[in-house]
Amino acid sequence: MAEKEKVTIVVFSGDLDKVTAAFIIANTAAVMGKEVTMFFTFWGLNVLRKSIINLRAPNLIQKAFSFLNRGGKERLPLSKFHIFGIGTFLMKFLMKRYKIPSITEALITAKAQGIKIIACTTTIGVMGLSKDDFIPEVDELAGAASYLGEASEGKVNLFI
Amino acid sequence: MAEKEKVTIVVFSGDLDKVTAAFIIANTAAVMGKEVTMFFTFWGLNVLRKSIINLRAPNLIQKAFSFLNRGGKERLPLSKFHIFGIGTFLMKFLMKRYKIPSITEALITAKAQGIKIIACTTTIGVMGLSKDDFIPEVDELAGAASYLGEASEGKVNLFI
Amino acid sequence: MAEKEKVTIVVFSGDLDKVTAAFIIANTAAVMGKEVTMFFTFWGLNVLRKSIINLRAPNLIQKAFSFLNRGGKERLPLSKFHIFGIGTFLMKFLMKRYKIPSITEALITAKAQGIKIIACTTTIGVMGLSKDDFIPEVDELAGAASYLGEASEGKVNLFI
Repeated sequence: MAEKEKVTIVVFSGDLDKVTAAFIIANTAAVMGKEVTMFFTFWGLNVLRKSIINLRAPNLIQKAFSFLNRGGKERLPLSKFHIFGIGTFLMKFLMKRYKIPSITEALITAKAQGIKIIACTTTIGVMGLSKDDFIPEVDELAGAASYLGEASEGKVNLFI
Repeated sequence: MAEKEKVTIVVFSGDLDKVTAAFIIANTAAVMGKEVTMFFTFWGLNVLRKSIINLRAPNLIQKAFSFLNRGGKERLPLSKFHIFGIGTFLMKFLMKRYKIPSITEALITAKAQGIKIIACTTTIGVMGLSKDDFIPEVDELAGAASYLGEASEGKVNLFI
Repeated sequence: MAEKEKVTIVVFSGDLDKVTAAFIIANTAAVMGKEVTMFFTFWGLNVLRKSIINLRAPNLIQKAFSFLNRGGKERLPLSKFHIFGIGTFLMKFLMKRYKIPSITEALITAKAQGIKIIACTTTIGVMGLSKDDFIPEVDELAGAASYLGEASEGKVNLFI
């Protein structure tokens, strides 16, 4: 039997529009029978974090930073025209109206299709997060070597 | 005869600098004899839109949003230092002075070289656009599956 | 002997977080025995520039622009939450505390591992820079054709 084609996506961005694009590509690839891995790092980790200010972080700076950079896939801003939430609100309205799945829905579809969801250990450390700060949809915490292992078998490897 | 190598570029960004980089890579690849597809989505659609505020959008929110997000390849802002248009103006001046093709010129070259220009149907819907809102240089309206079909034959696949 | 797998990264961004991600992937790939090329262009050139305002630029606009866009790998801002340097300062503190190499350290490691560092000739011209404006770690000044030559042999090609 032929092996499945692989697609890998590094989700570096935590912006609503970019994360939406990442999930559209990932979920479409899975529908087409490809094996998909999404590797979330830096601001992308916000997609996988519980929506709380992280007061349990070991470090005061991390606590402070978590006020700026709150997690939660329902809270992602638009990369442009956020403007105190107005642009983001309008875009969410339009996406709903035009049946683009929300990030929450897209993640459910991704899991149902067997897409592998990895959170990057290096940036987890920097942000003072631990396994408990993440939603259960995360399959694995792993580093760049693990990502590169998958990507070098991938036919399509994107950095978003 | 050997098949042509494929290069695909997702143009997600509508920023002048990123779109310029996308066209430089695309046009250089075509000169080198590669088969190139550019897939424009989200803000990247602005490159392919007629430069008008979209008052024909079916939805009031879309009309409002089109004031924020006007199309037109001559109107793309710089991703940094836009500062009420000043940085963008300076960069355009320098690009012209140093013979970097404008987006309009780059698109003409791209078409002349047979680069395939695709506009993403999903985001077209969200923004309330239709075929008539696009310049005739667009070869095709298509979705993520069509992009992935091309990318899985590509040797170089970039997301910009 | 099997050929080494190739990894190429276009570093378009000059943001601290994105450049850090680029170096983590590049250095990890080199540790894994892959042959890595980093192609710096547009804002990414700031990583490789001496940290000076470029008053030797041939053109007045370029001199002015260099006040906005100062080079120097110690001066890269964060892509989000820069906020007059506060967020960037906090992130640098955390990166240091959690043993993420600074860009300066990452570049030393990259060179020691034989990663090829290329600066893009086209954007060098636009910004009024010349070879003397760059740190000696740059291996080569080259254009998009040179990048595409490497990328078409690459298994993993990213645009960051």
